[in-house]
Amino acid sequence: MSDHRFLRALRRQPVDRTPVWIMRQAGRYLPEYRATRARAGSFVALCKTPELACEVTLQPLARFPLDAAILFSDILTIPDAMGLGLSVEEKVGPRFARTVRTRAEIAKLGVPDPEADLRYVMDAVRLIRRELHDKVPLIGFAGSPWTLACYMIEGEGSSSFAKAKALALDDAATMHRLLGVVARSVAAYLAAQAAAGAQALMVFDTWGGLLAPDMFRDFSLRYLAQIAQSLQGDKAAKNIPLILFSKGANAHLEALADTGCAALGLDWTISLGAARTRVGDRVALQGNLDPAVLHASSDAIRSEAKRVLADFGPHPGHVFNLGHGITPDVDPERLGLLVDAVHALSARSI
Amino acid sequence: MSDHRFLRALRRQPVDRTPVWIMRQAGRYLPEYRATRARAGSFVALCKTPELACEVTLQPLARFPLDAAILFSDILTIPDAMGLGLSVEEKVGPRFARTVRTRAEIAKLGVPDPEADLRYVMDAVRLIRRELHDKVPLIGFAGSPWTLACYMIEGEGSSSFAKAKALALDDAATMHRLLGVVARSVAAYLAAQAAAGAQALMVFDTWGGLLAPDMFRDFSLRYLAQIAQSLQGDKAAKNIPLILFSKGANAHLEALADTGCAALGLDWTISLGAARTRVGDRVALQGNLDPAVLHASSDAIRSEAKRVLADFGPHPGHVFNLGHGITPDVDPERLGLLVDAVHALSARSI
Repeated sequence: MSDHRFLRALRRQPVDRTPVWIMRQAGRYLPEYRATRARAGSFVALCKTPELACEVTLQPLARFPLDAAILFSDILTIPDAMGLGLSVEEKVGPRFARTVRTRAEIAKLGVPDPEADLRYVMDAVRLIRRELHDKVPLIGFAGSPWTLACYMIEGEGSSSFAKAKALALDDAATMHRLLGVVARSVAAYLAAQAAAGAQALMVFDTWGGLLAPDMFRDFSLRYLAQIAQSLQGDKAAKNIPLILFSKGANAHLEALADTGCAALGLDWTISLGAARTRVGDRVALQGNLDPAVLHASSDAIRSEAKRVLADFGPHPGHVFNLGHGITPDVDPERLGLLVDAVHALSARSI
Repeated sequence: MSDHRFLRALRRQPVDRTPVWIMRQAGRYLPEYRATRARAGSFVALCKTPELACEVTLQPLARFPLDAAILFSDILTIPDAMGLGLSVEEKVGPRFARTVRTRAEIAKLGVPDPEADLRYVMDAVRLIRRELHDKVPLIGFAGSPWTLACYMIEGEGSSSFAKAKALALDDAATMHRLLGVVARSVAAYLAAQAAAGAQALMVFDTWGGLLAPDMFRDFSLRYLAQIAQSLQGDKAAKNIPLILFSKGANAHLEALADTGCAALGLDWTISLGAARTRVGDRVALQGNLDPAVLHASSDAIRSEAKRVLADFGPHPGHVFNLGHGITPDVDPERLGLLVDAVHALSARSI
């Protein structure tokens, strides 16, 4: 299994075809997902029921020859396990019943025990691995400390996360205390996913790109590096490749590559060739087709897939993906066409 | 008047203090704006009534020692003048009654005559200039062709503008036809604003940053350059500094600086020092404090203003601004504090 093209590409080894998976591949664009989601009653119930999480994780693999499965879950499971009370309403987004803003509130937060407080996630990982029968590797994931802290402080989504930024500016020590406990929680959570069977790990730093450069280094990057270091010292996780995706933070690729991760996720606003030149052979790169391309014609999808492959060039170390999650309004057939195009256009002898 | 510190900074000449103005300085964070807006009945009526547009343009100048006024208007006046029927609802955003998607629909579009079809804007410019009594320069503005085309195709805001991108990918010739007529309209509109009295011009490429690099060059940058060239050949506009703000397009600063514009607007995800190193002395830079800083304490606002000034360094050619518009939830006193801090911290002898 360690010879699967997805894991080989993450190790920058030659592959027969460029591996491809798609962020949010188990999601609302699939009618079978919407059916399971309706049966679950709520998005959070879907995440918390291992059998249903397993079912939706496997759905896209039954349709398309994808090269990896990704655990169906949410980045906000950790704050939920810390007692914040997560709910997710369609078209509104995630919301916490309680926020965390003061030094006293932060002092009360503990690191959740993954096998106790987040057992449903670990059970889902084990079940999915069993059901996958080693067909493709399974990716586990978590949100970044900065991204989780944003939601914990605001209590919901925001276009600016001004409250989180204001706390960082006004009381950096308190912010670092929060980020510290969240980073330890993320590291423990990812290590437990590795122990439960995840064969690659990914951290989504969804809101890192909202930070000015100095703040990105202090409040996001530093904790991504701590997690990478922590996982390298963990028995189960040390040989599991870690992918960091700091959306909109293309100014910081070199620093992200220096964290010790195996690969960087990239959005579509940078060419893979330019990114590769900057990070050299330190990391593999994952990405970076604009998800909007899936609204264009078959010809455009093929030619854009070809362009992304050509941008990266004939080097080892590319995992094809979108630059952001697939959107609910995409026709699933378009995704099938993309996956086939990537495999066909990248076929080579090794 | 050409010796005002704002215009001197745009020409990269030494100034006694770093000039400062704020994107959306005439806006919802001001109670007096909300009162005038209520009197107007609608946002569009406010834009279309020169006396009221003048009134709100001047409101922030009565409160704060800002170094420039910016015409109160909307980037979507041009498509509205083309017959698309603009309405703007609070919390929903702009919407057109008609969209433009096909070759036939695009062929019907003409370049609006600014003094006829957009007379209310030209009248507002003339009235504001009269009422300003040369206290500070007046900035005129327009949306970029790509940004206007996004709204014209979608008919409203979007997180991805997938329809616009799909048209660009599937039928580039038709997209270029649309962008061509819009670019000619923007150039004529800005030239007319200059003739009516605008002393600086700004183009907001709000959605350029959503494009992959090749598409940015083909569908946004090319038309920004056309506008800059066109204005350089216009009698009224040729000596009027042009500021380009391509939000989220920091990968393209060198190319933007090569368009022939006088200055680049910058969001806060890049340090002004790094940007200055990349563009050299070709252009002035405008920006780039994170608007979220206005939610932090007075001390943090002052120290962040100091950091932005230090990032740029002791060179000529900096106009202080936020990296994006001021948000409606900001306490106006915080903005006063920022403006005073910028002036105090940047005072020098020339």
